[in-house]
Amino acid sequence: MADNSNKKMVESITSMEEDFAKWYTDVVIKAELASYSGVRGCMIIRPYGTALWENIRNDLDARFKELGHENVMMPLFIPESLLQKEKDHVEGFAPEVAWVTHGGSEELAERLCVRPTSETLFCDHYRDIIHSYRDLPKLYNQWCSVVRWEKTTRPFLRTTEFFWQEGHTMHETAEEAMEETVRMLNVYADFCEQSLAIPVIKGRKTDKEKFAGAEITYTIEAMMHDGKALQSGTSHYFGDGFARAFDIQFTGRDNTLQYPFQTSWGMSTRIIGAIIMTHGDDNGLVLPPAVAPVQLVIIPIAQHKPGVIEAASALRDRLKSVVRVKMDDSDNSAGWKFAEYEMKGVPLRLEIGPRDIENNQCVIVRRDNREKTVVSLDQLEQKIPELLKAVHDGLYKKALERRESMTYTALTMDELIDIASNKPGFIKSMWCGELECENALKEQAGVTSRCMPFEQEHLSDTCVCCGKPAKKMVVWGKAY
Amino acid sequence: MADNSNKKMVESITSMEEDFAKWYTDVVIKAELASYSGVRGCMIIRPYGTALWENIRNDLDARFKELGHENVMMPLFIPESLLQKEKDHVEGFAPEVAWVTHGGSEELAERLCVRPTSETLFCDHYRDIIHSYRDLPKLYNQWCSVVRWEKTTRPFLRTTEFFWQEGHTMHETAEEAMEETVRMLNVYADFCEQSLAIPVIKGRKTDKEKFAGAEITYTIEAMMHDGKALQSGTSHYFGDGFARAFDIQFTGRDNTLQYPFQTSWGMSTRIIGAIIMTHGDDNGLVLPPAVAPVQLVIIPIAQHKPGVIEAASALRDRLKSVVRVKMDDSDNSAGWKFAEYEMKGVPLRLEIGPRDIENNQCVIVRRDNREKTVVSLDQLEQKIPELLKAVHDGLYKKALERRESMTYTALTMDELIDIASNKPGFIKSMWCGELECENALKEQAGVTSRCMPFEQEHLSDTCVCCGKPAKKMVVWGKAY
Repeated sequence: MADNSNKKMVESITSMEEDFAKWYTDVVIKAELASYSGVRGCMIIRPYGTALWENIRNDLDARFKELGHENVMMPLFIPESLLQKEKDHVEGFAPEVAWVTHGGSEELAERLCVRPTSETLFCDHYRDIIHSYRDLPKLYNQWCSVVRWEKTTRPFLRTTEFFWQEGHTMHETAEEAMEETVRMLNVYADFCEQSLAIPVIKGRKTDKEKFAGAEITYTIEAMMHDGKALQSGTSHYFGDGFARAFDIQFTGRDNTLQYPFQTSWGMSTRIIGAIIMTHGDDNGLVLPPAVAPVQLVIIPIAQHKPGVIEAASALRDRLKSVVRVKMDDSDNSAGWKFAEYEMKGVPLRLEIGPRDIENNQCVIVRRDNREKTVVSLDQLEQKIPELLKAVHDGLYKKALERRESMTYTALTMDELIDIASNKPGFIKSMWCGELECENALKEQAGVTSRCMPFEQEHLSDTCVCCGKPAKKMVVWGKAY
Repeated sequence: MADNSNKKMVESITSMEEDFAKWYTDVVIKAELASYSGVRGCMIIRPYGTALWENIRNDLDARFKELGHENVMMPLFIPESLLQKEKDHVEGFAPEVAWVTHGGSEELAERLCVRPTSETLFCDHYRDIIHSYRDLPKLYNQWCSVVRWEKTTRPFLRTTEFFWQEGHTMHETAEEAMEETVRMLNVYADFCEQSLAIPVIKGRKTDKEKFAGAEITYTIEAMMHDGKALQSGTSHYFGDGFARAFDIQFTGRDNTLQYPFQTSWGMSTRIIGAIIMTHGDDNGLVLPPAVAPVQLVIIPIAQHKPGVIEAASALRDRLKSVVRVKMDDSDNSAGWKFAEYEMKGVPLRLEIGPRDIENNQCVIVRRDNREKTVVSLDQLEQKIPELLKAVHDGLYKKALERRESMTYTALTMDELIDIASNKPGFIKSMWCGELECENALKEQAGVTSRCMPFEQEHLSDTCVCCGKPAKKMVVWGKAY
């Protein structure tokens, strides 16, 4: 028997009902996605979490490259003077950056911050390489980590250092840059829905909620199990503000000097938090098949009986080209293994024992609904992809139904306050566009604007707060 | 005509003969691998350099995973107290780290350094997760950037921030850890020879040259065009020194508490410098096919004539599944394009013009030796891989012959000093093993020990310096 003294049994996870926040950290730690480090606010992303992030990265990266984007690697540090070039940007970020003041034993003449985001570095480089309209567009992206000095941290959701990609593009015209901003938001939305089985609402942020230095911020918002929103990806349109601040100019088609138009867009390891809180259950993690590090785990049943481990190993070797497969022939009991791989969210479990072998079959169990299917061993190459797709579709449908059942409409402030106090979820209402009303909703109902959805509905003519003519339908909620 | 005013013509590269250091930076900048940034000692790795690094990473990563290694992502910062836990290690690194002293506006209670390497972080984590011999081995790796406060920097060779992978493993026995140390050195050597066409000498570092905190450091040493050595990858055996310093203990098979044995190994973006200086020539970069971002570039000849661009585009689409292919139908002249892709080191150039189309053929030109082959369009799928292999073999052979012709044997100190002053390259000689003799060679001949090769030769019985009995044959040289 293996030593499981350090393995917690699945029974010890806090249930969602009892304490959702505790359930979340239990899953993170016990599924071995991440663990705390001795470094303030920084986490260690363990092999299972890293493999998950690598699958996310590879999927997104292929989508970016398909659209002509190229990866670059920019410096980790930003000199203080560079960060200060764009006023709104520095105001937004300076309070939360880590400052390097010494190199070895020498005090630096100018402080360097560890990048909290890299607009300024990209602009500094773009000034050197953009001279003619023929140099445009520049469609750059980088995969890296960034640092923001957070007061309170939670694994994946809010950490001092986090991993992400940041796309930074420059365009000849405002129109082209705006198209790029929306295009990349759609890439994020498609990725969430097609690869993560997470339905998202696409929309525009209010001015209060937009990115420091941006003219327009678009967002995709997902609803977590507890009804709270998680901003899952953002895409920003900057106009030519940074270009002017950084003096980036090019000779246009008409031979005049012009400023290019800029976008940036990012998705981070936060999305792992979204996966956990969208699909997870009281047995642990539930992973969407497209990014699961292990898509199918093979558990030999009565493995001490002759021929069982051999049959299981043969299946593993055979299925390697079909799915990301693992076989567990450790000495742990089958029951322990079932619980372990449920905890880890493996989409499909394949059980094979002596009687199955006799009958040339096996049993496949879905993680999302525990449905069992007896499958002929001759049919696996066809059946497994079908079942993975069924898990994906099942996860997506469940998440969408939950979101729909937890989305409410408020026509008056009283209604809105009542819903916000009693029903977790999203609230749709009309808004006049004024900051005062947005602030009032925060103060009186404790909700913030998640976005002004692209798909607008006409709920009424007037603002839910002030009663003046409404300009937009807004989705409100509490957010991570 | 496209605007090439910002493109330097190939003619403007400094020749190797004239100024090797200048030739090197010319190639880095003009092949658009990297450019200087406004951040002291940090470079911007541009799309072409990043694509090259991604190919290197993917190739190495597959080799690591094949041997059971798993990737993790550790924090960027190391608290000062953690760095100080292992005495030799902190002495080696503390003088060259960047210190974070402030988060936002708050001064930190304890300074954090930006990791110069991550032994201490891995050990801190291993203490938490290694308890039983069943938890061993731990075979972890991470891809990241590290920071060392360098006084003088050169792109890829020595920069304040550089990218690398660092493997960190823990083992039950010293023997197993030593095997791992050698195994990973062999992975590096195989990668250099099979994927980069760079011949390397495998050997052990002298105590003077070993890694801070290691018991044994193994290295692979490559010879650059100018006869200088470039240390291309290292693998370290730590014994249980860090495990004792960090109090990492496990219950062994005999139920006693034991310390595990540790290794670490790394290869960095320096290897891009090795590629440039091993294979490059006066026309620019020459890339080994296995990692070249573009393996074949298609240049339409007389592209204004009907059908030429169509034929070139059709070839590109057809060859996508065979090679990493690019077609350049820009308005630049064919001559300009030839020079441009030679500068960028693309292994094969395919020319196709009206007469070729008529004859159902094309011309393929090798970058390494400019050899032209007329190839039937029906044979491309077979011929291109053959030619790529021929380029690889040609590069490897040329580099090996150069190294052999520039490697000398010295039996006396006078001989060694004479060679070191007059002939760039490697010098083999016998050594007694004493630090004084090693220092004397540095002072009198300006050479350092590159390694004690695994493949030892018996050149004489006595140390080249002191005349006492020799213990090892050493390869000496000047190094980057």
